[in-house]
Amino acid sequence: MSSNSIGSFFVITCFGESHGSCVGVVIDGCPPGFKLTKEDVQKELEKRKPISDQISTSRREEDKVEVLSGVFNDYTTGAPICMLVWNREVDSKPYEEFKIKPRPGHADYPALIKYHKFNDYRGGGRFSGRMTVALVMAGAVAIKLLERIGIEVLAHTIEVGGVSVGNTPSMDMIRNQVYSNIMRCADPKVAKMMEQVVSKSKVEGDSVGGIVECIALNVPVGIGEPIFNSLDVDLTRIIFSIPAVKGVEFGAGFNVSRLKGSENNDQYAIRNEKVITLTNNAGGILGGLSNGMPIIIRTAFKPTPSISKVQKTVDLKEMTPVSIKIKGRHDTCIVPRAVPVVRSAVAIVLADHVLRAGLWKNEEPN
Amino acid sequence: MSSNSIGSFFVITCFGESHGSCVGVVIDGCPPGFKLTKEDVQKELEKRKPISDQISTSRREEDKVEVLSGVFNDYTTGAPICMLVWNREVDSKPYEEFKIKPRPGHADYPALIKYHKFNDYRGGGRFSGRMTVALVMAGAVAIKLLERIGIEVLAHTIEVGGVSVGNTPSMDMIRNQVYSNIMRCADPKVAKMMEQVVSKSKVEGDSVGGIVECIALNVPVGIGEPIFNSLDVDLTRIIFSIPAVKGVEFGAGFNVSRLKGSENNDQYAIRNEKVITLTNNAGGILGGLSNGMPIIIRTAFKPTPSISKVQKTVDLKEMTPVSIKIKGRHDTCIVPRAVPVVRSAVAIVLADHVLRAGLWKNEEPN
Amino acid sequence: MSSNSIGSFFVITCFGESHGSCVGVVIDGCPPGFKLTKEDVQKELEKRKPISDQISTSRREEDKVEVLSGVFNDYTTGAPICMLVWNREVDSKPYEEFKIKPRPGHADYPALIKYHKFNDYRGGGRFSGRMTVALVMAGAVAIKLLERIGIEVLAHTIEVGGVSVGNTPSMDMIRNQVYSNIMRCADPKVAKMMEQVVSKSKVEGDSVGGIVECIALNVPVGIGEPIFNSLDVDLTRIIFSIPAVKGVEFGAGFNVSRLKGSENNDQYAIRNEKVITLTNNAGGILGGLSNGMPIIIRTAFKPTPSISKVQKTVDLKEMTPVSIKIKGRHDTCIVPRAVPVVRSAVAIVLADHVLRAGLWKNEEPN
Amino acid sequence: MSSNSIGSFFVITCFGESHGSCVGVVIDGCPPGFKLTKEDVQKELEKRKPISDQISTSRREEDKVEVLSGVFNDYTTGAPICMLVWNREVDSKPYEEFKIKPRPGHADYPALIKYHKFNDYRGGGRFSGRMTVALVMAGAVAIKLLERIGIEVLAHTIEVGGVSVGNTPSMDMIRNQVYSNIMRCADPKVAKMMEQVVSKSKVEGDSVGGIVECIALNVPVGIGEPIFNSLDVDLTRIIFSIPAVKGVEFGAGFNVSRLKGSENNDQYAIRNEKVITLTNNAGGILGGLSNGMPIIIRTAFKPTPSISKVQKTVDLKEMTPVSIKIKGRHDTCIVPRAVPVVRSAVAIVLADHVLRAGLWKNEEPN
Repeated sequence: MSSNSIGSFFVITCFGESHGSCVGVVIDGCPPGFKLTKEDVQKELEKRKPISDQISTSRREEDKVEVLSGVFNDYTTGAPICMLVWNREVDSKPYEEFKIKPRPGHADYPALIKYHKFNDYRGGGRFSGRMTVALVMAGAVAIKLLERIGIEVLAHTIEVGGVSVGNTPSMDMIRNQVYSNIMRCADPKVAKMMEQVVSKSKVEGDSVGGIVECIALNVPVGIGEPIFNSLDVDLTRIIFSIPAVKGVEFGAGFNVSRLKGSENNDQYAIRNEKVITLTNNAGGILGGLSNGMPIIIRTAFKPTPSISKVQKTVDLKEMTPVSIKIKGRHDTCIVPRAVPVVRSAVAIVLADHVLRAGLWKNEEPN
Repeated sequence: MSSNSIGSFFVITCFGESHGSCVGVVIDGCPPGFKLTKEDVQKELEKRKPISDQISTSRREEDKVEVLSGVFNDYTTGAPICMLVWNREVDSKPYEEFKIKPRPGHADYPALIKYHKFNDYRGGGRFSGRMTVALVMAGAVAIKLLERIGIEVLAHTIEVGGVSVGNTPSMDMIRNQVYSNIMRCADPKVAKMMEQVVSKSKVEGDSVGGIVECIALNVPVGIGEPIFNSLDVDLTRIIFSIPAVKGVEFGAGFNVSRLKGSENNDQYAIRNEKVITLTNNAGGILGGLSNGMPIIIRTAFKPTPSISKVQKTVDLKEMTPVSIKIKGRHDTCIVPRAVPVVRSAVAIVLADHVLRAGLWKNEEPN
Repeated sequence: MSSNSIGSFFVITCFGESHGSCVGVVIDGCPPGFKLTKEDVQKELEKRKPISDQISTSRREEDKVEVLSGVFNDYTTGAPICMLVWNREVDSKPYEEFKIKPRPGHADYPALIKYHKFNDYRGGGRFSGRMTVALVMAGAVAIKLLERIGIEVLAHTIEVGGVSVGNTPSMDMIRNQVYSNIMRCADPKVAKMMEQVVSKSKVEGDSVGGIVECIALNVPVGIGEPIFNSLDVDLTRIIFSIPAVKGVEFGAGFNVSRLKGSENNDQYAIRNEKVITLTNNAGGILGGLSNGMPIIIRTAFKPTPSISKVQKTVDLKEMTPVSIKIKGRHDTCIVPRAVPVVRSAVAIVLADHVLRAGLWKNEEPN
Repeated sequence: MSSNSIGSFFVITCFGESHGSCVGVVIDGCPPGFKLTKEDVQKELEKRKPISDQISTSRREEDKVEVLSGVFNDYTTGAPICMLVWNREVDSKPYEEFKIKPRPGHADYPALIKYHKFNDYRGGGRFSGRMTVALVMAGAVAIKLLERIGIEVLAHTIEVGGVSVGNTPSMDMIRNQVYSNIMRCADPKVAKMMEQVVSKSKVEGDSVGGIVECIALNVPVGIGEPIFNSLDVDLTRIIFSIPAVKGVEFGAGFNVSRLKGSENNDQYAIRNEKVITLTNNAGGILGGLSNGMPIIIRTAFKPTPSISKVQKTVDLKEMTPVSIKIKGRHDTCIVPRAVPVVRSAVAIVLADHVLRAGLWKNEEPN
């Protein structure tokens, strides 16, 4: 019942705070005999780092992963894998104020009520986006595990500040273009337009939100455990654990309310001796089970609540209305940095279900 | 790790099939000394029953609840509560065909791959909407429990087949009008328009989807357990366990991607000596914790996949394309019957968190 | 976190009370395609029934199992299996008194403090030995599952009222003699002596305790998940859920404190090209993992607390010392009826671990 | 389902290996506002350290705890607490041999079968007694938490190599004498005799086992959650996770098989206006619930399997019988160092149940 743990087979437990000594994760249930190096994890952490001053926080953490357990001679042993990054670049001063004057859109107020004055408010404590480092470290392991089974997980920005990519780009564009631009958008032209919106927003001391799409390819048919560990249940569950998420949808998503059954149903056909569907409004999931088509998940991220505009809040000691102007180092748009986080989260769930379905076969090392 | 169980304190475990002998639920963790009669549960079950031939299946189950354990002298004892309804009105014949020719939009195909020929295909087996009877029975208990704490959970249809209710109706309309029309819509005028869309769809042998909104009032500040049992995580998790759900959003939801931080942030004020927010784009949840404002969740339901139009499928034995015309008894629009189901699901999660937060106080019986 | 559920893969959830309407169990995680008939379960229930007036309660329940879900055409479907037996032969009257005057050795007193007056005190409610019906029903399924993998679980009485069987009887005696006598003892001569002790005890209005040994044969090497789901952890856990258990030991058990390492260590040898140990002080478990040798567990059961002798208790209303003489129907010695219960409990854990280890292979029906 | 996690409210997750970089633990569910310093934890770790060359391993680790998260300004925040000690004094060389020639009485053989050649065999890897450092660190937190509620947990050696302490010493002797001698025995005279047995055993290149008794005082009535999280279930569960444990018993334990009901039943009386029992054969637990009397648990530890005498084993590559003589650094008798470990384990379970029962009240810091 640990609320900092998730998963059935591939179970992750997170710890750490934004301005504490570190952010870490323990993975339990990773099978033995699985090649895993520090570099495998570091590669994914790099994708999550602040991108540029134009768009991201000026806090610059090294985020060098340390693997504390569970790996021996570059192979997993079956024992729990603990990994962490140390926090170095910490400035907790601006946060003192928010203990009494909660920032609009942040967890400050309910966290104070819940944890009283003991809440670690520094840098947002455990409510900070920095916590997603744990997901990315665990995700790196999951991505490696899925690779051996042939499952590929992709993610990209499809909308920022109202600028949308329109039709889903090709898989090749998603594979090759996403990290070619600071928006993590598969269409470089749209990326440019998104950039302009973000730049404008930064100048205004404001922020913007957006939507990330994640696609999982080659997921075998029948993955998922109905009812309460179905694939969509477990995927949404982990995605909503990411700060700033306000909506999740699969396939046709909210648009299903405007479709007829005859339009929305994905009819079956045979291609290369395999059963496929002619459309993919289901987003690859039927009855909570994978149906062999690409799994498609879209996640809505709210604009970063930390803006430099003056906002109304209250002084909780005096119980009087006051105004607040947030200093500190923040992202104007969190969406591009959320792209690898969503991908990691999805990979973690798929790794869990792949193990649960008995699809993993132990292998000898090279 | 039971995939048919959910919850931390108020834990429910579901069993039964669409055409098996019954549908049931075991609730574990319900506190002792809590008044609970058969009628409390029956009242909620009635709301879920087929509404009219115009919109619902012609299968007419009595759905009379039996309480098998955990209640003594009309009070809960603290022991697990097992409740069930028997299946009586069963006709499994039409389903024989789908074992080989999977219905588009249904779980037939992945279920066959997962469970082989052992899958209980009758009436959709465990993938049927009938499984939501279990949620409604457990929800009835949760609703009673929440009432004593002063938490009210409401649900209503806000969109069907593209017809939307527009601005959220008043709480009083939601309280009083929802069950005055077959669409479970708080605005009777909009309900009429929705009805017409459904009727037209029925005539065409087609189906329509829609959106249900659920609102929880008077949830105390600070409920929820970050990170993986935060309030939004646990709410989405249970909602996605309901068949036909394709999207969930809180507050401003997917629209956040079009808002600036300065627009989306809910600024604080004081009213009647209490902290409130001036808007509620957060839908009552910040950092996974309740912030004292109404919790607002919207859930998208796809159109019923069972339509009487001819559809393309495949013969899985011959591996040839074939067409299928679905007979059997189905809802043209499942949305109105999903209204009490969503409400029940939300109540179950809130009851779980209220107990977890230690808000429940045992009380003497009258 | 349901305290009425146990298991990781093969998860059971129990419900019901001694004098409520039924005792039931839901098994989740049973694989599909596994032959299971009502008779398979009934056969095990018969072993748990009261044996004779000499030794057992005069309450005579039919205990006819009903299988409510999860089985279709005599094969498991992969859906949760709910089974129950109805309570018919109920006389709750004698229990009224114990609400105020708790019986020594029973749960009456702490249960009253925990559940207040809402506790279902009738027949001991949820603290009754009758609850073990749920273990036996679930165990019947586990036993069938283990059979297909070649694992055999045996149990027998080794000590009653100080009369001990001495050296462990042969496996053949255990297989063939246990149900030939009312003591469930593999050695009929010892059984006779035990019977005499029990008879004498009955005449005296007293009761006796004893020890049950359980042996699991052919458990593959490496079953168990260290640290907190190791095989000994999970076995003891379920065994202590059986009422009246006061001690559990494996292999040499408590006697290890009198052995030297050189005596206690089981040295290795090779027999028929397989690794074996020359002794089995470990009871088949090393480091929480099965080592291929027979798993040996001994469980101590206290004498039935319900005796007809006058005992000291207190009147909880008046807070005065009083004496009590217990009427009602009780076993003079619970040990023989605990034999199938322990076996069932052990089988449940082994089935769980066998599934977890991926040893189960789905098979086609005949 | 993490097999390296345990607990419902106060959940611990362990990681690390004997010769890896560290041994650590994450505690989730510790309430906020609870004073906790590094010294609180260090104090308990000191008790677990090797005692003297006469009895313990010559491996000398500093075991200085580092608190990585969950504590801010010396108070718990409600976030997960990660703590670890680094391994420094590591010599893995002697262990190479055991990969092929498993040591009798150790986990070497089943671990090799389970984890193949990927098993971290160094120093016994995850099967080493060194893993109990994690229990002691978590136990230190639990002990502090229990102190505030008034619960005291004591442990002491009651038998070593056949030398027994006889009648339970007084609580004052247990409180004051246990750490006055290297046997952790409350009776210094018996301790001397135990020492002689151990010394003789060391000279012989052999080892001895023993029994630890743990007593928990002032546990409120009604703690425990029947059926599968009853107090005895959860206590035995964690105790069997300690390496070398072969038996656990409560109160009269295995001796109940030799008692009549009239002898074993603890009759009730009133003392100082409180309900007590005149004997404590139940060891403080009835029906899985605490009954207000001292909780008494005895745990049997086998003799350390690492002895320097020649033993029979097999060469797993050649599948031939061979002999082995174990070098390396080992305890002649693990029992004294198990005393603080058992105490920690018991405290962890009691902390979990105390939180679950809602007995913890948040408090302001000084």
